[in-house]
Amino acid sequence: MYAKSKTVALKNTAVNGGFWADRQKLNREVTIHSVYDRFKDTGRFDAFKLDWKEGDPNQPHIFWDSDIAKWMESAAYIIEKNPSADLEKIIDEVVDLIEKNRWDDGYFNICYTLFQPDDRFTARYDHELYCAGHLMEAAVAYYNATGKDKFLRIMCDYADMIEKAFVTEKWAEFETPGHEEIELALVKLWKTTGEKRYLELSRHFVDIRGTENDTYTQAHMPVREQEDAVGHSVRAVYLYCAMADLAAAYGDETLFNAADKLFDSMAKKRMYITGGIGQTCVGEAFLGDYDLPETSSYCETCADIGLILFAQRMYAIKPDRKYADIAELALYNGFLCGLSLDGKAFFYDNSIEVDLTGINNPHDNRHRPFYPITQRLEVFSCSCCPPNVTRLIASAGELACSANEDTLWLHQFIDGKFEDGGKKIKLETAYPDDGAMKITCSGDFRLALRLPSWCRSYTLSKDAQVSDDGYIYLDVTDGEVICYTLDMPVRFVQANRKVRQCAGRLAVQRGPIVYCAEGVDNPLPLRGLYVDPKAPAALGKDSILGLTTVELDGFMQKENDELYFDYDEELIPQKIKLIPYYAYANRGETDMLIWLTKK
Amino acid sequence: MYAKSKTVALKNTAVNGGFWADRQKLNREVTIHSVYDRFKDTGRFDAFKLDWKEGDPNQPHIFWDSDIAKWMESAAYIIEKNPSADLEKIIDEVVDLIEKNRWDDGYFNICYTLFQPDDRFTARYDHELYCAGHLMEAAVAYYNATGKDKFLRIMCDYADMIEKAFVTEKWAEFETPGHEEIELALVKLWKTTGEKRYLELSRHFVDIRGTENDTYTQAHMPVREQEDAVGHSVRAVYLYCAMADLAAAYGDETLFNAADKLFDSMAKKRMYITGGIGQTCVGEAFLGDYDLPETSSYCETCADIGLILFAQRMYAIKPDRKYADIAELALYNGFLCGLSLDGKAFFYDNSIEVDLTGINNPHDNRHRPFYPITQRLEVFSCSCCPPNVTRLIASAGELACSANEDTLWLHQFIDGKFEDGGKKIKLETAYPDDGAMKITCSGDFRLALRLPSWCRSYTLSKDAQVSDDGYIYLDVTDGEVICYTLDMPVRFVQANRKVRQCAGRLAVQRGPIVYCAEGVDNPLPLRGLYVDPKAPAALGKDSILGLTTVELDGFMQKENDELYFDYDEELIPQKIKLIPYYAYANRGETDMLIWLTKK
Repeated sequence: MYAKSKTVALKNTAVNGGFWADRQKLNREVTIHSVYDRFKDTGRFDAFKLDWKEGDPNQPHIFWDSDIAKWMESAAYIIEKNPSADLEKIIDEVVDLIEKNRWDDGYFNICYTLFQPDDRFTARYDHELYCAGHLMEAAVAYYNATGKDKFLRIMCDYADMIEKAFVTEKWAEFETPGHEEIELALVKLWKTTGEKRYLELSRHFVDIRGTENDTYTQAHMPVREQEDAVGHSVRAVYLYCAMADLAAAYGDETLFNAADKLFDSMAKKRMYITGGIGQTCVGEAFLGDYDLPETSSYCETCADIGLILFAQRMYAIKPDRKYADIAELALYNGFLCGLSLDGKAFFYDNSIEVDLTGINNPHDNRHRPFYPITQRLEVFSCSCCPPNVTRLIASAGELACSANEDTLWLHQFIDGKFEDGGKKIKLETAYPDDGAMKITCSGDFRLALRLPSWCRSYTLSKDAQVSDDGYIYLDVTDGEVICYTLDMPVRFVQANRKVRQCAGRLAVQRGPIVYCAEGVDNPLPLRGLYVDPKAPAALGKDSILGLTTVELDGFMQKENDELYFDYDEELIPQKIKLIPYYAYANRGETDMLIWLTKK
Repeated sequence: MYAKSKTVALKNTAVNGGFWADRQKLNREVTIHSVYDRFKDTGRFDAFKLDWKEGDPNQPHIFWDSDIAKWMESAAYIIEKNPSADLEKIIDEVVDLIEKNRWDDGYFNICYTLFQPDDRFTARYDHELYCAGHLMEAAVAYYNATGKDKFLRIMCDYADMIEKAFVTEKWAEFETPGHEEIELALVKLWKTTGEKRYLELSRHFVDIRGTENDTYTQAHMPVREQEDAVGHSVRAVYLYCAMADLAAAYGDETLFNAADKLFDSMAKKRMYITGGIGQTCVGEAFLGDYDLPETSSYCETCADIGLILFAQRMYAIKPDRKYADIAELALYNGFLCGLSLDGKAFFYDNSIEVDLTGINNPHDNRHRPFYPITQRLEVFSCSCCPPNVTRLIASAGELACSANEDTLWLHQFIDGKFEDGGKKIKLETAYPDDGAMKITCSGDFRLALRLPSWCRSYTLSKDAQVSDDGYIYLDVTDGEVICYTLDMPVRFVQANRKVRQCAGRLAVQRGPIVYCAEGVDNPLPLRGLYVDPKAPAALGKDSILGLTTVELDGFMQKENDELYFDYDEELIPQKIKLIPYYAYANRGETDMLIWLTKK
């Protein structure tokens, strides 16, 4: 086998306590229902009846199949751990509608069936294959959760039909999917059914890229030659997921190396400190290396989800903390920011800095390419992110571990139980709020513990060295308890000197958590605050948010009536309170800043 | 008289040596001819023949009348001091064409006559009155230079016709000029002819503003109620010039106070450190207070010219260094930057920072609202700036002094002779390269010397106090020589804390000159350079540019392969070489930075 390990699948995980159990409870009790209600309100569920007609409200949109598919996939993950007849009923009803309204040849798509039945597979950008892919993922998840195979069979029929249209009969009028997703979905379909044709169809869609002269959809060159992460960021990371899947399935080292280069392109040159990717709203796309605009950062939540899923695939294939570190960074910052603390509202784009004065200025004449939303919303007209958030939270346990015959890798420090064959661990931790972990092992095996690159010191109850891949390998015996504690002091972080936006600025991190200053806690303008990296930092607790805060003995530049004046080194002492970035905008609309001015 | 003083007019000035004599020589020997050649090439001069027809090259544009008008005005100022039969011949030919091709009712406009003869004065935005105003300014200048009155008479006829269209007969289909200029031109026409009707027509056009709900053309509210500089920046400052003119002519304090507020709105809240105004390319317009984007700064050269002309009017009405300081800042930085050192090429917009990596990135997907030009050009399709530069340089002597019966104010330190009635001074100085001034006085009078707000120490050969208005008042006697020396150390300047773009950054100034780092002199990325305001700064001379440079013992952030990493206070020592901002981009396309990162 080419891949060093395989992800420990959801069924072999149990997230029972700690940070993620809380989030999954909120997801299960609030978020999944809130998203359902909004999708019901907006006609997305009813659209599957295919009875919309001119003049009716809620005209179906080309993305809607995928919105509901991701909701169903989320619900399936929830059902798998917490059976729910209500959620199952909703999914069954949708599946019945799909069965009823699909074409004889297996095709299903709401908008094409309603509006353009003669134009199937003629328009690359119309998301048919993207919607199909999400439905397939949902079908796989629902089969795994319930054992019911109707949805899976329907989607196999659809995959067979797609194979005909694009490979056997070749009547489709384009070759390269215009929004990647089907590729990774087909790999899941193969893994679940054992039908190799689906894996091969995925490879077909990935290998055929390179003929479209279109960087937006990553179709500008063969994937093995791509070195820079370009174009629409969600499309990109979904493709990279499929590249990793295919590299593992076929033992294709060239493909893995290409995926690795693309990973580095993002992680080392085109990613915000939050793990956010896609620097511009124009095409929801990547920009060039080290170009990370702040008040117009885009960082779509879905792109971070894709980045996490891509990194997860990479660290299973080749355990290396470089992948897991980035997955962790994106998970606890860019991704989590996408959801409000009450579990009901979402960011589509995630700002790196909020400057309300600029956003609200009546004279600014819309001169910026983009104005970020500053408050989370319950639903969007293009509402891809909300059900993507619910599915990642519901399946977060899968991020934790991968395994091969003799080794279990612990990549993400998620409180829970994880097992692969005879290798089991029970991880108890308050991570990421605290770096202490108690790991109870069952079975004799090799345990690999990630040592995050942000960690400068740690204690481990057993002697062991850090390997070059950034993991600590331990031989554990049945019943052994390992105590592993990562020290989590407040750290000041700077950016590469090539990032022009961050010169002379520092960000504050503790463990994997990136902190930010909010206007509700600090005097404005936030950029007028100065931090001294040599001054002590204290931890606190926010009484409303209930989160660990960082309190700095900082400074504020003096007020002045003049616009420009001779430099005056005197600053006013000013306490600065920072909260986790992911928790910003939970106390009203306010300014927010991650990159603080260095004293 | 309401105004405290009047500008010492061009005819009473003689710029014979120093910085501005060099620039006027270049203007006279190179620039005026280079602009002529480009305007000839592009059909602008021939357009006055009004024989363009479909299929011909160089279709006339609605601005072209004004381009040639400003060129003629420039040539007139040159002729006034350095008679030139060649330049006179060119102007006479154009005047003959205007006379030949104007309408019986006095109207003249190339495009309307050619393309829309039935639509005169129907479209606010079509620049008819703007072109008319520039032609009037040219006619006044030419009359003053040569005593020939044909052009002036033609333009009086035109003004009479405009008065009918807009006031007496009111057949024009709009009320408020869509691009201000006619207002200030009519004041000049009044001053030259003594015809008060022209002054009143100007007041009509200024007073009628406030009915258009259009901030872009400053027509959104009555001018006396306007407090924020908004909309198209060139339009704005041309209006403000007329407001100042009318305040002086009518002793209208309300109008002066409104103009003063608008001046402060720019100078204290909406102006770059170069004196550049108009923060955005979108509408070539002002943004909100303290919002001063850098790589997309607009700062049109014409806007700086208008700001200088506005400030000049204000400091004549009410001598106060706040006006003269800003005029000086704009003159030596934002304005001068608009012209190449060889006198042939121009910036239309003037960047505050050039980041070629960002501009040239193939993946950046045009996500910015604006990409600045990084090299000066000889002509633009909208070529308002080049002839505006030539006219300001040719008439720069008028910026120096204003006078009333007993006092002569020296506002701008221009080497030359200036007189008003019996009050004469001869100023000898290498300013702005050196702060030493020798002022030889003829006549007994009160001399007022501006003490710039940037100046922390000075020597004066006679005891005197600085008045509240920022001027030093001295009683001088015939033949007396005053020595006045402004100390010019290198200064580090910071911005108001509300300017988010400048937090933690310092600019370097010496006297009125703003310095910048260019990529040809310094290692990239320029934002990776750090300056220490406590370290000594040395002056040097650039061997190619021949200009005084500033050399700093600065630092460079270390190179790093990672995108983000723990803060490391260690920096690499790095000499930093700075040149005057106005001289940037004279040695090829390169990065440029004014606001350096503070260590």
